[in-house]
Amino acid sequence: VLSPAASPALESLRADLLGALGQSAVLVRPEDKAGFLTDWSGDWTGDAVAVARPGSVREVRACVDICRRHGIAVVPQGGNTGLVGGAFPPASGKAMVVVSLSRLDAVRRADAANATLDLDAGCTLQKAKDAADAIGLQFPLALGAQGSCQVGGNAATNAGGVNVLRFGMARDLILGLEAVLPDGSLWSSMRGLRKDNRGYDLKQLFIGSEGTLGIVTGLCLKLHPKPATVETAYVGVGSVEDAMAISALARAELSELVTAFEIIGTECLPLARLVDADLASPVSPTFPVHVLIELSCGRRLDGRALLEGFLADMLAQGLAGDAVVAQSQAQARRFWAIREGLVEGQARRGYHVRSDVSVRLGDVAAFVAAARAFAARDWPDWTPQVYGHAGDGNIHFNLLPPTGMPRHEAQAHGRRITEGLFAIVEAFRGSISAEHGIGRARTDAFWNGLGAVERKTMRAVKVALDPLALMNPGCLIPLAKESA
Amino acid sequence: VLSPAASPALESLRADLLGALGQSAVLVRPEDKAGFLTDWSGDWTGDAVAVARPGSVREVRACVDICRRHGIAVVPQGGNTGLVGGAFPPASGKAMVVVSLSRLDAVRRADAANATLDLDAGCTLQKAKDAADAIGLQFPLALGAQGSCQVGGNAATNAGGVNVLRFGMARDLILGLEAVLPDGSLWSSMRGLRKDNRGYDLKQLFIGSEGTLGIVTGLCLKLHPKPATVETAYVGVGSVEDAMAISALARAELSELVTAFEIIGTECLPLARLVDADLASPVSPTFPVHVLIELSCGRRLDGRALLEGFLADMLAQGLAGDAVVAQSQAQARRFWAIREGLVEGQARRGYHVRSDVSVRLGDVAAFVAAARAFAARDWPDWTPQVYGHAGDGNIHFNLLPPTGMPRHEAQAHGRRITEGLFAIVEAFRGSISAEHGIGRARTDAFWNGLGAVERKTMRAVKVALDPLALMNPGCLIPLAKESA
Repeated sequence: VLSPAASPALESLRADLLGALGQSAVLVRPEDKAGFLTDWSGDWTGDAVAVARPGSVREVRACVDICRRHGIAVVPQGGNTGLVGGAFPPASGKAMVVVSLSRLDAVRRADAANATLDLDAGCTLQKAKDAADAIGLQFPLALGAQGSCQVGGNAATNAGGVNVLRFGMARDLILGLEAVLPDGSLWSSMRGLRKDNRGYDLKQLFIGSEGTLGIVTGLCLKLHPKPATVETAYVGVGSVEDAMAISALARAELSELVTAFEIIGTECLPLARLVDADLASPVSPTFPVHVLIELSCGRRLDGRALLEGFLADMLAQGLAGDAVVAQSQAQARRFWAIREGLVEGQARRGYHVRSDVSVRLGDVAAFVAAARAFAARDWPDWTPQVYGHAGDGNIHFNLLPPTGMPRHEAQAHGRRITEGLFAIVEAFRGSISAEHGIGRARTDAFWNGLGAVERKTMRAVKVALDPLALMNPGCLIPLAKESA
Repeated sequence: VLSPAASPALESLRADLLGALGQSAVLVRPEDKAGFLTDWSGDWTGDAVAVARPGSVREVRACVDICRRHGIAVVPQGGNTGLVGGAFPPASGKAMVVVSLSRLDAVRRADAANATLDLDAGCTLQKAKDAADAIGLQFPLALGAQGSCQVGGNAATNAGGVNVLRFGMARDLILGLEAVLPDGSLWSSMRGLRKDNRGYDLKQLFIGSEGTLGIVTGLCLKLHPKPATVETAYVGVGSVEDAMAISALARAELSELVTAFEIIGTECLPLARLVDADLASPVSPTFPVHVLIELSCGRRLDGRALLEGFLADMLAQGLAGDAVVAQSQAQARRFWAIREGLVEGQARRGYHVRSDVSVRLGDVAAFVAAARAFAARDWPDWTPQVYGHAGDGNIHFNLLPPTGMPRHEAQAHGRRITEGLFAIVEAFRGSISAEHGIGRARTDAFWNGLGAVERKTMRAVKVALDPLALMNPGCLIPLAKESA
């Protein structure tokens, strides 16, 4: 095990990187690297020999070539907004180089006729959304981190978010991809075709590979028509079961017009108020479950009337207890501020148990009940915070530690809580990562949960594309010696 | 090169298969095998040592084990409705065994709450659609061959069809997949989760792999709400450009409600009349392009009013010349009979040049013009037949040979015509296979059109999963010696 500290071999590597990229693009001093080696939540801090910031695809290839020649692994990094610690090396272990894509941020081609957007991987998601908007279309991927996260990271982690219900995850929104392979060659499928059935769809491998097969350098994104109207409702509901029933009816009666269907456990509201003390619940907090519904429509559809009609029916059927349709964009933003504030509010509370699990749609209510029962029984001092993309069966079942519990103590408990939650997920045959990915935080739990054939097949693909284990080793696929 | 004719080694293989599957499930006599060794169009006939018809996943694994032990390759076969000759071995060359999935045809689980359908790969697409219908949902994949093609084949070829515009290709409709790998082990991702972001999404590799990585034995299909109303219009248009403009406006103004947008070159109508002499064109045949639009809506949406309003606007803007909205399901079926009849009509004409290409949406009109110009200049005696899924940029540019031209002569010309068409596609940076796949018919053209990095990467994946080249060798990936 090489330490990232100075050594002649590492000095030689740094010199080669400096020669290829120039002084300002290779960070080696701790204070310069720091911003790339701690995640936003503060849960993890890592280390790296250097942080390289290539400014072109050619320079990305040069970084990979140099690292390979030196036998040093590479960790690709986008906006460093991931939630599972996959974008930088651990603080101890093998020396690695972080390759940050943030300087690779040009929009290459915005094609309204083809409804596609070609761009560099380092563009932020917001920049992609703005570029789509500028040609009268939309890129529907929507995440809290969209101002900072990068589309290359969205691709590498198969990002989800609040619009998955209608538009799918990043995987469903990517028509083409370009990546630097571990041998330095450039793989590309950037023709921008909506249908192309020629052989293995290898871009699907890079999507969700978390930097373990190559470095995504470019994308062709699939754009959608911009809705003429977006209508938002906030609904008070008596149970998760009722929320799921409303979700199924909304899809059936309103076709694919529903763009978001979020559930919020009422216990989460104080979190949102940590961010904005003026946030008022649009419906009574006595409803145990709140639901945020968004409908997006083309100009021939009367979204307001559709949503109001649907909700009136839900109230009449007793599935909804109260419902408010936003009368203005400002009011809709206030509804969303509750959903978004609770994520930020959690972060302000400091360390907390975060999860991102999914089960079959028919099991969502039973899963939430089982997880709540587990928390109440085994961790009564912790406060569950339950919310998520219920229409996809994706629940964030989080827990806040008792106020004042020291971080290290909370983290130790947190690992056991997570194990308990994951056991419940497995009992439901669910997923321990619905959208956040695996990273380094979940690699062990992920790998231990796989069957022998799945492990063997996944490793075979990794070895086929990255035989020297140069790309983000230890993330997603355990190092070979650890998992024999 | 082993001949499929009798030899002690092959007799031993057959004996092992008979021992594992029983007499009735192993076909060795030419007259018994024949139905599995000729494609429906009659363009290709192959040969095989035996056709094995396993009745369970366990028996599929036994077939693969036996063939591997004997060093004999396996060609998986679904409904044998493919259009590119990928489902049986060539008539000369290595001895291979066809493994037909047709006896593996149970519906395993229909789950309305989860909106999923688990079933054996050998179920016909129609059986899957009926099983979805029985629980009040729909499986939207729709193909002419749906009564015969099998869902395993749909997965292995990433089938497309007329509803791709809204619901995507087979890839987008498969939540889980089960496959027997070349080493006989069983890989599975059948949890039925709408979101599951744990590691490489390996089912994406099997989808579209055309039997070269394993044998698909089971699928979890994603179901959609059944529409309350389906409205169909038949429109006369002055040009492909105008049809593409209408397509873009329909998507923008009517959101994702448009389920089909098919263009039909007016020259195709006589073909449909070969199948049904009473078929009348709903609009004047003087319009060079006819368009079939289908809108599918949930019960809160007034599809008829939406479609009529949209078409009135298209007429007022001069983009459409005439439009008829079907007033009954019977009338809608007559519209579709034109679209479906032209495919069957072509087949009745015997050999013809079939293509299945795609270009960027903004290039569709220019591509069609260029291909028509090529045909008129170089092949004036051949009759172009242009139709396709214009909303996806997917055009079937076909040509009928002059009446009376002997089949072998037409086929020889056909190869040159196809080469010319593919050169035009390449000039547009399009795809030579938008939805039909590669099979044996397109392997050379496909492989020659790839760059070195794409070839190397695709072969690396093939070798990783099928190191002994046991699965459908020569399909999709050329045999190693042929492509060094």
